[in-house]
Amino acid sequence: MAKNSAGTSSLHRHLRVLGAFDAVRPFRTLSELARDTGMPASTLHRLLGDLENEGLIERMPDRAYRLGLRLWELAAQAPGAVGLREVARPWLAAVQSRVRQHTQLGVVSGTDVLFIDRLSDPDGVVNVTLIGGRLPMHASSTGLVLLAHAPLDTVDAVTAAGLRPYTDRTIRTRAQLDEALAHVRADGFIVNDGHIHAESRGVAVPVRGPDGSVSAALGAVVPNDGVSSLPTIETLAIAARGIERALADAYAGRTSGAAVSAQPGISGRSWEHIARLHRVERAARG
Amino acid sequence: MAKNSAGTSSLHRHLRVLGAFDAVRPFRTLSELARDTGMPASTLHRLLGDLENEGLIERMPDRAYRLGLRLWELAAQAPGAVGLREVARPWLAAVQSRVRQHTQLGVVSGTDVLFIDRLSDPDGVVNVTLIGGRLPMHASSTGLVLLAHAPLDTVDAVTAAGLRPYTDRTIRTRAQLDEALAHVRADGFIVNDGHIHAESRGVAVPVRGPDGSVSAALGAVVPNDGVSSLPTIETLAIAARGIERALADAYAGRTSGAAVSAQPGISGRSWEHIARLHRVERAARG
Repeated sequence: MAKNSAGTSSLHRHLRVLGAFDAVRPFRTLSELARDTGMPASTLHRLLGDLENEGLIERMPDRAYRLGLRLWELAAQAPGAVGLREVARPWLAAVQSRVRQHTQLGVVSGTDVLFIDRLSDPDGVVNVTLIGGRLPMHASSTGLVLLAHAPLDTVDAVTAAGLRPYTDRTIRTRAQLDEALAHVRADGFIVNDGHIHAESRGVAVPVRGPDGSVSAALGAVVPNDGVSSLPTIETLAIAARGIERALADAYAGRTSGAAVSAQPGISGRSWEHIARLHRVERAARG
Repeated sequence: MAKNSAGTSSLHRHLRVLGAFDAVRPFRTLSELARDTGMPASTLHRLLGDLENEGLIERMPDRAYRLGLRLWELAAQAPGAVGLREVARPWLAAVQSRVRQHTQLGVVSGTDVLFIDRLSDPDGVVNVTLIGGRLPMHASSTGLVLLAHAPLDTVDAVTAAGLRPYTDRTIRTRAQLDEALAHVRADGFIVNDGHIHAESRGVAVPVRGPDGSVSAALGAVVPNDGVSSLPTIETLAIAARGIERALADAYAGRTSGAAVSAQPGISGRSWEHIARLHRVERAARG
């Protein structure tokens, strides 16, 4: 089994080092990394050297480490998140111009919702989501919309992972979870009052891909002030239809859904020219 | 030397596989990857298995591979590209609303300009840049602006890499290169007519970071039609000043320039709450 070969465990260790960085801790010292990864200093030092040689980690003038430009460059070629994000961005901006709090877009990643975009007003209510950040699906309105359209074994996995309570309003039993998911399926939206922070309300709707399956959820975080959420729901629903049309356009006539959608606005003539240049470069190299 | 250890060469091989994907070729079959990487099928198969186990590569229903969501998630924590991109995005949109062709933002990566963002009109002239794509610095107006403010050994390295001609207007001698760089330094902008495609003109200006050094270049690609570029230059210069102010604000008072800039609009109260949740999670894990 490849999992036990030196190669795999090496990749896994490299990724453990990269995973020790996040938005809250973007700059880490050697000793912080040693503490968080539990790796011996000599191993860690070697792994950091490997990662730095490849540009995946960069050294700051104060000798702290941060994730490198090369990592972003590689990821910019990943059509899964990048394409959806680029296509959806104008619609998120449209929602945010009305909601003037927080607007966000999430996709399923394991038992979590992974937020691939977020727009926020600096004076908005407390909102814990980060671009590239996660929340367990049961806790987040965006997550519940995704979970309502996920296979049953994902619901089981979320339940098995433990329904962590953030406030006394967070869903904490399977019965509550099933009821919420049934509501999402019936209503096409969800409103969560104070499930993650007492002052904040989450509202979310599904976004369907060109094949009809729910591929993302669009959410807003607004004050938990008892005011009707209907205008927010309508705004989200209109934007979700817009994203769906834009996705269908982006993928129309593309074989295997080429990542064109990650490069919005590129004309057919530009694509032809780019593809020709790539062919010339490959021929020159090979 | 760590470079020769099994760990490094393994990471390097994993990255060679990831590097075989790009915007033009986002979906690759096993045989395409074998051809492009020159690796034996058994080695390649093992490396792909490792990468798939870690979520860095995903398998499509048609058995083709694409880069995975986990790669994007890791990269979303990289403050270098992501922060600048998020901060600059409203200014790129403002430029694009006037230029209505192509607006792009580039940073130095080796001897290339790496484009971290681009906005395009589908009816715009031919433009070969891609988000996450590169061009050699001598060929691109955005690249020449960056090179004009780079250390002399970067200019030497660009020259040594070969001044590849894209058209008969591309800079192809060191003397032409030095002259263009001197113009950028004196004028604060550059206009390249037909250097990459006969029909297209590149215009670019520098963007300085909070420390005063040139950290990016803002460019437009417009028709090469003999019309004065002065309005475009002015639009770019105003936006560059805007990005510089936004960068200074994003980094103001942040120790070591925390990656807050990658998460625009997040309020102080939200950050406090997020940091508290992270501490609770770490305590629960450790």
